[in-house]
Amino acid sequence: MGEWFDVQGEGRFFASDNAAPVHPEAMRALEAANRGHAMAYGGDALTEAAARLFDELFGRPVHTFFAFNGTGANILALYPLVESFGAVICADSAHINTDETGAFERVVGAKLQTVPTPDGKLTPDLIASQLSGRGSMHHPQPQTVSIAQVSETGLVYTPGEIRAIADFCHENELTLHMDGARVAQAAAALGVSIAAITSQAGVDVLTFGGTKNGLMYGEAVIAFIDPPARALPYMRKQITQLSSKMRYIAAQYIAYLSGELCFRNARAANAMAKRLAEGLEALPGVEFAYPAQANIIFARIAPNVRERMLKRAFFHVMDEREGLCRIVTSFDTTREDVEGLIAAARGDG
Amino acid sequence: MGEWFDVQGEGRFFASDNAAPVHPEAMRALEAANRGHAMAYGGDALTEAAARLFDELFGRPVHTFFAFNGTGANILALYPLVESFGAVICADSAHINTDETGAFERVVGAKLQTVPTPDGKLTPDLIASQLSGRGSMHHPQPQTVSIAQVSETGLVYTPGEIRAIADFCHENELTLHMDGARVAQAAAALGVSIAAITSQAGVDVLTFGGTKNGLMYGEAVIAFIDPPARALPYMRKQITQLSSKMRYIAAQYIAYLSGELCFRNARAANAMAKRLAEGLEALPGVEFAYPAQANIIFARIAPNVRERMLKRAFFHVMDEREGLCRIVTSFDTTREDVEGLIAAARGDG
Amino acid sequence: MGEWFDVQGEGRFFASDNAAPVHPEAMRALEAANRGHAMAYGGDALTEAAARLFDELFGRPVHTFFAFNGTGANILALYPLVESFGAVICADSAHINTDETGAFERVVGAKLQTVPTPDGKLTPDLIASQLSGRGSMHHPQPQTVSIAQVSETGLVYTPGEIRAIADFCHENELTLHMDGARVAQAAAALGVSIAAITSQAGVDVLTFGGTKNGLMYGEAVIAFIDPPARALPYMRKQITQLSSKMRYIAAQYIAYLSGELCFRNARAANAMAKRLAEGLEALPGVEFAYPAQANIIFARIAPNVRERMLKRAFFHVMDEREGLCRIVTSFDTTREDVEGLIAAARGDG
Amino acid sequence: MGEWFDVQGEGRFFASDNAAPVHPEAMRALEAANRGHAMAYGGDALTEAAARLFDELFGRPVHTFFAFNGTGANILALYPLVESFGAVICADSAHINTDETGAFERVVGAKLQTVPTPDGKLTPDLIASQLSGRGSMHHPQPQTVSIAQVSETGLVYTPGEIRAIADFCHENELTLHMDGARVAQAAAALGVSIAAITSQAGVDVLTFGGTKNGLMYGEAVIAFIDPPARALPYMRKQITQLSSKMRYIAAQYIAYLSGELCFRNARAANAMAKRLAEGLEALPGVEFAYPAQANIIFARIAPNVRERMLKRAFFHVMDEREGLCRIVTSFDTTREDVEGLIAAARGDG
Repeated sequence: MGEWFDVQGEGRFFASDNAAPVHPEAMRALEAANRGHAMAYGGDALTEAAARLFDELFGRPVHTFFAFNGTGANILALYPLVESFGAVICADSAHINTDETGAFERVVGAKLQTVPTPDGKLTPDLIASQLSGRGSMHHPQPQTVSIAQVSETGLVYTPGEIRAIADFCHENELTLHMDGARVAQAAAALGVSIAAITSQAGVDVLTFGGTKNGLMYGEAVIAFIDPPARALPYMRKQITQLSSKMRYIAAQYIAYLSGELCFRNARAANAMAKRLAEGLEALPGVEFAYPAQANIIFARIAPNVRERMLKRAFFHVMDEREGLCRIVTSFDTTREDVEGLIAAARGDG
Repeated sequence: MGEWFDVQGEGRFFASDNAAPVHPEAMRALEAANRGHAMAYGGDALTEAAARLFDELFGRPVHTFFAFNGTGANILALYPLVESFGAVICADSAHINTDETGAFERVVGAKLQTVPTPDGKLTPDLIASQLSGRGSMHHPQPQTVSIAQVSETGLVYTPGEIRAIADFCHENELTLHMDGARVAQAAAALGVSIAAITSQAGVDVLTFGGTKNGLMYGEAVIAFIDPPARALPYMRKQITQLSSKMRYIAAQYIAYLSGELCFRNARAANAMAKRLAEGLEALPGVEFAYPAQANIIFARIAPNVRERMLKRAFFHVMDEREGLCRIVTSFDTTREDVEGLIAAARGDG
Repeated sequence: MGEWFDVQGEGRFFASDNAAPVHPEAMRALEAANRGHAMAYGGDALTEAAARLFDELFGRPVHTFFAFNGTGANILALYPLVESFGAVICADSAHINTDETGAFERVVGAKLQTVPTPDGKLTPDLIASQLSGRGSMHHPQPQTVSIAQVSETGLVYTPGEIRAIADFCHENELTLHMDGARVAQAAAALGVSIAAITSQAGVDVLTFGGTKNGLMYGEAVIAFIDPPARALPYMRKQITQLSSKMRYIAAQYIAYLSGELCFRNARAANAMAKRLAEGLEALPGVEFAYPAQANIIFARIAPNVRERMLKRAFFHVMDEREGLCRIVTSFDTTREDVEGLIAAARGDG
Repeated sequence: MGEWFDVQGEGRFFASDNAAPVHPEAMRALEAANRGHAMAYGGDALTEAAARLFDELFGRPVHTFFAFNGTGANILALYPLVESFGAVICADSAHINTDETGAFERVVGAKLQTVPTPDGKLTPDLIASQLSGRGSMHHPQPQTVSIAQVSETGLVYTPGEIRAIADFCHENELTLHMDGARVAQAAAALGVSIAAITSQAGVDVLTFGGTKNGLMYGEAVIAFIDPPARALPYMRKQITQLSSKMRYIAAQYIAYLSGELCFRNARAANAMAKRLAEGLEALPGVEFAYPAQANIIFARIAPNVRERMLKRAFFHVMDEREGLCRIVTSFDTTREDVEGLIAAARGDG
């Protein structure tokens, strides 16, 4: 069958951290998991072992539920946090609002109550502005808040910012969900532990991502509070996110958490984004939309500069008219890749 | 990280073909796919290559959509086949009805119109009995029929039986969906091609399974008719079944289809089930609920016999009172495994 | 505008109690309610007064929520009783299953777990047969039971039968819903109070019907237990069942409950059905499918007899092949109507 | 039962046109409809007659479907206009977004794609800004646009504005829905026919309101295009909006349309709002948020003024902090009511 694989290219580009391959340690874990029979649907020893690693990561027992992908994990995380007439308060730029083809509305059947924000990040004040309809039967009832870490604009919430949001939520009978598709990248950017920006900062349910940081597939929903945990097994099956051969997701997370692969990958990606940002910053025709805090750069780039860069390596132009570009580094982005792109931007390429 | 994997056992059992590991050829395909960057969400060369292999398998262009798991693929396959007030006619024993935690009702929001059957298989007459409410606004409107191949009772529909159902469907403005979680096992059991029991027999949309036959994860929805194909990309994302790093599902299907792994695995599993059935058939205290036609045996087994067998290798007792057991073989079940179980049943073990 | 109303007929027939007009006392109540402004959405004095009448009817404080119609009230009643992965156990002949065009699946998004029954009535044993999947994440979780009083087959549950079902439910962590579209007719048939077959018999949430017994529109959902009551106002609005000018529904229920109109109408309808059943019973070509216990008769009637009867007054033939007919009396059915139909059946007409 | 009605007040206030009673002509129509039996669910002569009156109103055959209330009619109107992965573009202030407790998301299961607007009205440019995700499977697909006439801010779209929106929609494969809860008030305000701002201006499906203009209950969904019409009967039943005794809704619409009651009521309400606006305009402490074009006034009113007014007659303060008040007139608002409120505002009260 080998020849069927010759169609693949070898290069790297900047389209998304989803475009990157699987880290070799994760591949080795898949091989290591591949022996004998194991009970399906998570009743196996590796799933149990991975759950213990999550307990260790957070320094306390947590409820861990593996899912297949980010959209699935987000929907699963939010599903037990709202009643049927409830609402989730989120930024209007939230991935769950803009990039999941209405999955939340369809599967959960409740409301995303979206808030315009200056920079893609929620604040207690912005959340407070959304609570006026509470107690009136004519309005969806806000019951949870969802923030993304790293945010969709590439910004990172500090532990203090998250704590402030969480405190506001809990004082107002709201739970707090974090879409942590890039939570490791955020922790690495802040130089803190993942616990410091999740469980210790007051997050109630976390979407814990690995696919954008070197894994093949599989994300985790981590519940720090008990009530959702009872419902989650049923909900996971119902929303089509229960993996039968779950040991292969678990194996990847054993690799990811047991040897700091999670942080090594995140730091690598962030470092390359930082270098790239520094290289582009000074250039005429490049204007940063947001500071590059983790592994995503949003910049408005003049057409001629853009064209030269795109000849070197692909990335997404989000808005042709504005010239808004999204450039994403990943665990395997090399210094050479980055310097090459900077040179192209400069016209040296 | 190696020590984390020591918790695993080495043995094999008969609980489900989902308990089996991944076939080494599929593992090698994952390795082969693991180089360089590739566009996410199916925009890569391997996904394209795998789609061509499906075209070859069916001898005609088909619409191929990879999904994560069987429930997801079933829901995705059915989603474009019914309007919001539509109904799917299926056996009351159908997996979509009994074993998917209401996924269809939740995600599609329409009706499963279930039919009691003598043996888990639908017939044109049984379907005809479900059409009385057509055209009346008070009743859900049957718009598609779903059958499982292999059926949930372990039986196989012949090409002629499928053709008769398909003809009835098409004469009555119904489409036909096949839940082919074990479609390769069915084809192998019948000694015919997969096309012979799907596209050539009148099936409109097929859930094509691989996970129960040696793959790690990933099933395919194959649309033989055009209208669903337009909607399926949006629906797949919406129901949380779109894989970002899709090349790794595609790679497995390249292994599965390009070198007949699909049939080799299916034949192996079926042969072991056949031998097992022969060995059990003659025994006192064992009564087959259905003939064992593919890789699943349903039998009522007397408590003492059962106990001896379960000491040797695990399988599911579906109904304690009746003593109904489900014994499933998989691609890696060995002759030794089977003879050992027979010996245990006999009391020789 | 008067001439626009000349298209109407004057006659009465036996198609449904929905075909009957509005009782004059209910009309007078609408007139009485029609003065001055009143707060919308139930914040008015008549809605409050009607709620007190329901408290009186049941001899205890209850939660009363008016809805528009039977389907709406059923869906609203069941909505707070199941979680998203829950199931409602009901007879396969239940109106919510067969005659509401998938409203439950669409709006509630959960499962109707249907049970074949000999006569349209559930029993503790039939319910017990549906509990095997509890606690397994692969199956919808039964959380409530729904019975119809009068049942869809025209049969009436006795207080003892309901109590036995309710006790079984409560011992098994199930709630009990009653679709009481004809609950007054049932009480009248049994010669007991409505409380005796609802609150006092262990029903948790009741759909209380009036439209089939002389009202214009408007049914009530009565919650005898507290938890659903918090959610119901939001759910009612969400499922489109909140009336803005609610005082006009309330007014009808004041007429219905304050002067026993409810029972007078029910007794009248039942008496005419009883007389009709007696008249038909002895005739050749007429075979009762179920005993006529309230105001609905199900009988298989020979084609020639049927034809003669249908010439006299319309009713529904449910199944042409079987000759199964449904004949329904209503509060305004006269003795002359009934004797005329009997005479027609006899061939004297 | 008469004494139960003594709890009612006699006064009028300015809370909502839903607080008003039923116009005597509509009451007489209910009486006129109340004779003999009639086929249920719309199979009666009055429903047919009312449908013909709608044909006359629009000067062409239209598809008329009665529903119970405004939320129900809006959901029903939109339901056939979007696929499951579709989106409805609407103002973020739209009633369907803010005041229906998530009914759309729950029942239709699709997305409301909301647009901030300066004044509550959509324009082709605002709609155009929402189309960037078309054709991408990651985003809900805009398929229809919904505008409210009168808008939620009390403004009226001119025929030209609607035509421009409709043309833009049809050039861009979008349908146009109008929430016409107050469409008669809008037509009266503009001095044009209802057809001029609906069918003749390019609206595809219309929610036609009567309850806010003197009827008891019942709104109509009018489809000017054919495709939704096939699905609407099933959808109406499914979403719980099918009235069994539909003749009583039809009767009200016969009264409403056959003798211009619709316009007489609308003109009366508008005239009173206009007079009220004139009286308040000049006053210190009163600042209009939007011009009062139909029967709704939005104004910021200083606390002392507001208090004096509220002592005279109730209306809603929408935002305590801002002092934003919503004052609504109805068909029965008298000149005395209005002058009294103005006098109170002035401090003459």
